[in-house]
Amino acid sequence: MENTSLLLKNTVHNGKTCDVLIENGMFSKIADSVKAPADCRVINCNGNLAVSPAFYNTHTHAAMTLLRSYADDMNLFKWLQEYIWPVEAKLTPHDIYVGSKLAMLEMIRTGTVFFNDMYWYPMETIKAAKEMKLRAAVGMLFLSGADAEAEAGNNAVNQELEEKRSWIEEDGKIRLTLAPHAIYSVSREKLHSAACKSGSENYHLHIHLAETRSELENCQKEHGMTPAEYLDSIGVLGPKTILAHSLFLTPSDIELIRDRGAHISHNPCSNMKLGSGSFHYQEIVEKYGCEITIGTDGACSNNNISMLEEIKFAALSAKRQAHDPEVGKDTDIFKAATCNGAKAFGIDGGEIAVGKVADCLLVDLNNPLMVANYSFVSNMVYSADSSCIDTVICGGDILMLHKFIEGENEILQEARKCCRRIANI
Amino acid sequence: MENTSLLLKNTVHNGKTCDVLIENGMFSKIADSVKAPADCRVINCNGNLAVSPAFYNTHTHAAMTLLRSYADDMNLFKWLQEYIWPVEAKLTPHDIYVGSKLAMLEMIRTGTVFFNDMYWYPMETIKAAKEMKLRAAVGMLFLSGADAEAEAGNNAVNQELEEKRSWIEEDGKIRLTLAPHAIYSVSREKLHSAACKSGSENYHLHIHLAETRSELENCQKEHGMTPAEYLDSIGVLGPKTILAHSLFLTPSDIELIRDRGAHISHNPCSNMKLGSGSFHYQEIVEKYGCEITIGTDGACSNNNISMLEEIKFAALSAKRQAHDPEVGKDTDIFKAATCNGAKAFGIDGGEIAVGKVADCLLVDLNNPLMVANYSFVSNMVYSADSSCIDTVICGGDILMLHKFIEGENEILQEARKCCRRIANI
Repeated sequence: MENTSLLLKNTVHNGKTCDVLIENGMFSKIADSVKAPADCRVINCNGNLAVSPAFYNTHTHAAMTLLRSYADDMNLFKWLQEYIWPVEAKLTPHDIYVGSKLAMLEMIRTGTVFFNDMYWYPMETIKAAKEMKLRAAVGMLFLSGADAEAEAGNNAVNQELEEKRSWIEEDGKIRLTLAPHAIYSVSREKLHSAACKSGSENYHLHIHLAETRSELENCQKEHGMTPAEYLDSIGVLGPKTILAHSLFLTPSDIELIRDRGAHISHNPCSNMKLGSGSFHYQEIVEKYGCEITIGTDGACSNNNISMLEEIKFAALSAKRQAHDPEVGKDTDIFKAATCNGAKAFGIDGGEIAVGKVADCLLVDLNNPLMVANYSFVSNMVYSADSSCIDTVICGGDILMLHKFIEGENEILQEARKCCRRIANI
Repeated sequence: MENTSLLLKNTVHNGKTCDVLIENGMFSKIADSVKAPADCRVINCNGNLAVSPAFYNTHTHAAMTLLRSYADDMNLFKWLQEYIWPVEAKLTPHDIYVGSKLAMLEMIRTGTVFFNDMYWYPMETIKAAKEMKLRAAVGMLFLSGADAEAEAGNNAVNQELEEKRSWIEEDGKIRLTLAPHAIYSVSREKLHSAACKSGSENYHLHIHLAETRSELENCQKEHGMTPAEYLDSIGVLGPKTILAHSLFLTPSDIELIRDRGAHISHNPCSNMKLGSGSFHYQEIVEKYGCEITIGTDGACSNNNISMLEEIKFAALSAKRQAHDPEVGKDTDIFKAATCNGAKAFGIDGGEIAVGKVADCLLVDLNNPLMVANYSFVSNMVYSADSSCIDTVICGGDILMLHKFIEGENEILQEARKCCRRIANI
């Protein structure tokens, strides 16, 4: 599937039929008619496949896809203590590799080309992403409170990742990040060292923030500050910081996050499914002008990692929260899930325009979910599901062509083997 | 596609591989191995297609699918007055026929075998449903306040429907209902006559109830009663009554609806998208023990009519509203969208069991959204989208076989013609 150039012939862009040429991983020409260069691969879109920005998922635990439907509908404490943590403790590196690949099948089918991940055995997720040709930011996990042996093990894992950083990042699609789990699970010292490392060695930093009311209350009790203020006091809030959830924010927290240029990853399905609380979209985005991004969280608390579903939840929950249908407009939510997600990681993508990286979807306008089609963006946000996505392109590489993903059956077979073992744990 | 018997060979039911025989529109045998009768059509499920109850959508305006993405993200008054009503006034009977068929393509692809509809030119929707072999309840619209000519026209339409009732209902799949639009748009006299007719002539009755706060407030001002009390005072609340939305209910309203045996159609997407208000799932279902059903509303305020999406919204919005992940359990929500919907219309379906009507889906367990699969119902509620649905069977008739629906391209072509005209209105 590798050519240096790719021509999308007779695709639909902004409601008009045109040709889109991709060269060296970037969009190089968009015009009524483009002549294919020598050796160019051509996808004929027949005026029925629209070219759309692809999705950038800014908060995942990809390999948890192996635990989809393992335990649902219970309070967070019981869910974690009795179900998730015991089974996670028995996951092997091979499980993580296979679970990551399974997640990537789903990401591709649902239109995602980039994910920002935090989980155990990150090297396995990196290997899987390289093989599947997706973009990914994969975190070196920071946790405190483990026993000395576990701590040493985790340090060794992170050291190996750092040593292999240039190999990991060489193709330009994968990057290594720092992933201190949360303020309640990582010591101030470790958070501080992560902040320093982020600055001195140019790492993005990925952390859960203000996901539950108890996190807010405990932080105020312990530190006399809100979680956002606490992070800022340690130097963690900056333009390379991704804050997952961010539900319990005060107005001054929101201003602080905005002024530091940190990025919120809004995860509406997970927040609703776990009953964590409400995201204050109207205040955060419309009143204080934060540019948010969208993430699905893991498949265990969602239970899928479809950005197509997530953006409908983001738009509708914003309207519900504000009691106002004008809040959470389709164009704003779509931008959050595409451009804003890319921008947070310095990827010049999320748009179909000459000079941008060639990440895109071909969307089947013959799918009943796309008819009527007075507004393509409205249909993407409010109507489409994965059945509408025909082809997925990432940096000019074809990840799925007319619904076909190379190696899919083998991944599913291997994933089922892992699941059978997990079911008997 | 017509045989008197149909064998689902090596399907997956409750986690086990088995054979399911359908005869004369009913499930007749479920066993490890069933011998196909003479002339029996066989679908080989290869142990990868699970048999699942299909969905019963209890509140739709099917033909509005032609207006999908026509106008979004604005306040209800502006949306209706400036966009929806002017264009609706210009829809022709042919538009309604085509729009209904377009909606049915989407319903089939998303696993729905029955819908309860309220819209203009109901005979067109009935014709379309007969051709597509879906089950439907289609309403004779009651409205007040129109001019004399419009009123006469509507009366003539309803009279024709009544005269043709035996033809309409002869196949057992379609039934005619009474559809007084809402308490604020239909006079007390008309509501009363609908209630009488429902009782004396055995019609189901379909009405919007307590969708907005202003409906509640105006009703209290005008009648000194809540909308539910007002309906009950006219005799409208009974076991054949379907109440769409039902957001602004007092505790005694809920008890009243439960005690009368009336059925609530919960429409979470539409309620959220229009910012109408919150459905009190925990109180209605768990505290007062009402059995609710699920509906999508029209594609104009949703913007799809996928019950698969609707059930995820129903479950997650219940948890969010209650701040409790144990509220809105997957099994309860799935039952609401299947058994309860069927039961509300006296259809002995919504379950895969001998003696029940043979309405079912074959769900592709090889779709990444269905892996892992520790709980099939969890996956249907929280993960699946239409890409997982392989085959749809309604009363033993195959509506979709391995993703193929007869006549789909012609319907899409015709629908696009209607949309082009509508775009220029």
